[in-house]
Amino acid sequence: MPERPFAEQLRDENAHLWRTLLDHPFLQGLAEGSLPGDRFEHYLKQDRIYLVELSRVLALAAARAETIEEIELFTGLLHGTVTGELRSLERTASELGLTAEMLREVEPSLVTQAYCDRLVRVGHEGAAGDLVAALLPCQVSYPAIADRWVSLAQSTRAPYRAWLAGCGSSAMRELAARFAGLMNAHAGRADDRGRDRWRRCYRSSLRFELLFLQAAWEKMSWPACVAADCTP
Amino acid sequence: MPERPFAEQLRDENAHLWRTLLDHPFLQGLAEGSLPGDRFEHYLKQDRIYLVELSRVLALAAARAETIEEIELFTGLLHGTVTGELRSLERTASELGLTAEMLREVEPSLVTQAYCDRLVRVGHEGAAGDLVAALLPCQVSYPAIADRWVSLAQSTRAPYRAWLAGCGSSAMRELAARFAGLMNAHAGRADDRGRDRWRRCYRSSLRFELLFLQAAWEKMSWPACVAADCTP
Amino acid sequence: MPERPFAEQLRDENAHLWRTLLDHPFLQGLAEGSLPGDRFEHYLKQDRIYLVELSRVLALAAARAETIEEIELFTGLLHGTVTGELRSLERTASELGLTAEMLREVEPSLVTQAYCDRLVRVGHEGAAGDLVAALLPCQVSYPAIADRWVSLAQSTRAPYRAWLAGCGSSAMRELAARFAGLMNAHAGRADDRGRDRWRRCYRSSLRFELLFLQAAWEKMSWPACVAADCTP
Amino acid sequence: MPERPFAEQLRDENAHLWRTLLDHPFLQGLAEGSLPGDRFEHYLKQDRIYLVELSRVLALAAARAETIEEIELFTGLLHGTVTGELRSLERTASELGLTAEMLREVEPSLVTQAYCDRLVRVGHEGAAGDLVAALLPCQVSYPAIADRWVSLAQSTRAPYRAWLAGCGSSAMRELAARFAGLMNAHAGRADDRGRDRWRRCYRSSLRFELLFLQAAWEKMSWPACVAADCTP
Repeated sequence: MPERPFAEQLRDENAHLWRTLLDHPFLQGLAEGSLPGDRFEHYLKQDRIYLVELSRVLALAAARAETIEEIELFTGLLHGTVTGELRSLERTASELGLTAEMLREVEPSLVTQAYCDRLVRVGHEGAAGDLVAALLPCQVSYPAIADRWVSLAQSTRAPYRAWLAGCGSSAMRELAARFAGLMNAHAGRADDRGRDRWRRCYRSSLRFELLFLQAAWEKMSWPACVAADCTP
Repeated sequence: MPERPFAEQLRDENAHLWRTLLDHPFLQGLAEGSLPGDRFEHYLKQDRIYLVELSRVLALAAARAETIEEIELFTGLLHGTVTGELRSLERTASELGLTAEMLREVEPSLVTQAYCDRLVRVGHEGAAGDLVAALLPCQVSYPAIADRWVSLAQSTRAPYRAWLAGCGSSAMRELAARFAGLMNAHAGRADDRGRDRWRRCYRSSLRFELLFLQAAWEKMSWPACVAADCTP
Repeated sequence: MPERPFAEQLRDENAHLWRTLLDHPFLQGLAEGSLPGDRFEHYLKQDRIYLVELSRVLALAAARAETIEEIELFTGLLHGTVTGELRSLERTASELGLTAEMLREVEPSLVTQAYCDRLVRVGHEGAAGDLVAALLPCQVSYPAIADRWVSLAQSTRAPYRAWLAGCGSSAMRELAARFAGLMNAHAGRADDRGRDRWRRCYRSSLRFELLFLQAAWEKMSWPACVAADCTP
Repeated sequence: MPERPFAEQLRDENAHLWRTLLDHPFLQGLAEGSLPGDRFEHYLKQDRIYLVELSRVLALAAARAETIEEIELFTGLLHGTVTGELRSLERTASELGLTAEMLREVEPSLVTQAYCDRLVRVGHEGAAGDLVAALLPCQVSYPAIADRWVSLAQSTRAPYRAWLAGCGSSAMRELAARFAGLMNAHAGRADDRGRDRWRRCYRSSLRFELLFLQAAWEKMSWPACVAADCTP
């Protein structure tokens, strides 16, 4: 019997975290239309910062790729993030009255900064497989969220519906499948030490995905003791 | 009238954060002897992770220094951290029953990881002055803490007294003065854009210093929603 | 009287090197059609390695850019290099009987490796302006070569004509102008220390551009004392 | 029968390069005392640049080490290079009338720059084993040179004798043994892909070691076509 693909092993090993993430009240509120607008705004603002930093991480992956095919792959992902996802987010934000200037002035929350700095650090220091493992939870979460909430999504508010539709778009599904395929290819060539390291990279990012939703739900920026001095 | 040294400007501009840090109940408890041992243990365990990561940051500073004098300086600081501070922390920990193995198994808390990843990122990407600004709050906090609490320190518990004595040691004071001097030297050669960037580096690290104490005080590891899955 | 744009200052300060480069017998041979095919092949093979490494450098520039506009700019350049210049070179090579496999097996010469490692190092360590200065000579050399030899180019051999036409294409001219503009913008914000550093980055790359032609002209790989062991 | 240690395999696989290196006329001239002083000066000047860059590479190794033991090891090597080898070279240079200022003004030759940029790049991008493989030829060459020429070394000129004695010192022998041990430890945990990569890292550095001697022997700086513009 062939071994289960590594990307599926990772998912199964973190089933509890995935369930908590997919059932998160922030997503339920999005799908049902009950999510207060300020919480969605908080999410969008922080997500823009995440996408800019993700671009840097994908660029680092291109810079350090082992083959020209991987350079092409990560260049394509980077180009898509910069010209596609970021623009799409800015359009959604604009419909909610958030201008490009307003987005640019947003400070990262503790969770956003910690997540992005972790990914950038892996981009500087990790092997190619480390970065794939660290980016995988984000990529596969979008279609998983769409599938979980598709039955409710048609009746929710327009910007929420558009966001959920984006999660389940064929572009997102293809991207998620490509990352899972990359992970499996790396796992097939690696030893147990490598796969254990990737388990930790994956778990760490999955936890940040969940914290990212939680921070939006609670509109958390920084702990109270330093928040008053949050101005840059 | 000569301009105030930049390191002092930074301190003044963040007077409120500094006061909150120096008056923190964790430090008061240390100085009075009332701090519960498990909170001090939490601090030591996380501080060991910080010192290991600080070593990496100092190594990056040496690698990217502009002159041989700076290479020598950061090599000396790195050597001192690895052979001095880390060993000293391990001795204190050992007196409290924490073996080297126990220390190695500790997972970084969210705050520790976020702080360290930020410093390492600056180490990879920043100019030399950025790193000096980002390391300055930690270095100058030790003698400032010693000065703030010296009047109480003699009557506190032995390991707390040893820790406070370490903060105020001549080695620590010299180190703090050297970092302040480096910062002033960089500021003298820089333009406003550079100094503004360093203000942000400094502020960010100072906030993390405060969060680090707060996390020890509350024995915080990760937010509840992901803490149960904290095992690596 | 306004100061001369920095990119033009750099060109003037290195007029002698530029003249030697533009008058190089390799280019004359290309334009007249007298260049032996094996020397052009040597050039193409090494240039492919250069373009792959240039992609990594542009990716590092995107990763470390200060603004989202710069991320977009370098992402566009990277995307263009990977999907445009590299493909175009492979087409030319294919017309000369060089398959993709043959190109992949080529080892970098000493000059190619030294030039690429220098650029990649600047990509990891330098500030944004350093990288612009280090990439500028290559970018502006293409249209300068086309202008120098356009009068002869119509009567040369087909692959040489295509290569010269590529040098003078509007895409190449726009790219060169954009890099010069970036350099001038950086120079306007910098102090003398920064500009002096960029002078050295520029000069170093310009010398490598000239050595790159010279190596193709002499079909140099590595000095004789190690060349026999050149197999990887 | 146990497999031959990897460090010895590397040496055997490159026996021809090693023989050419150890029999090099530069070394024979050193041992016999017939080496013209200006060639030794050329060597010392370039070697000083190499040692400064080696310090950066060792610092990068410390920054990216996997364990605290490796951080300590590379910190020790870095500290030894900065406070030991560099000072010792400066003393030798001073006895020959080369002041610290004169050493600082030296420009790297093409070979020195190419070698150093390669090592620094591996330091930024490679895994720990890559760096060990890339540094191994330099470290083991010193005692090998001492052993090859010890029978002549007593009768040569004083600074040459001192240099050869340094090569064969117990500190150098211990360092070489430590690097070989590290290489073997890495090889024992790696797969064939890793070991093949390390073969290339090792071979590349060994060739540069040989080119470094050859450049000193010929007092080569840069190829003639760019040498006139060598001033920074």
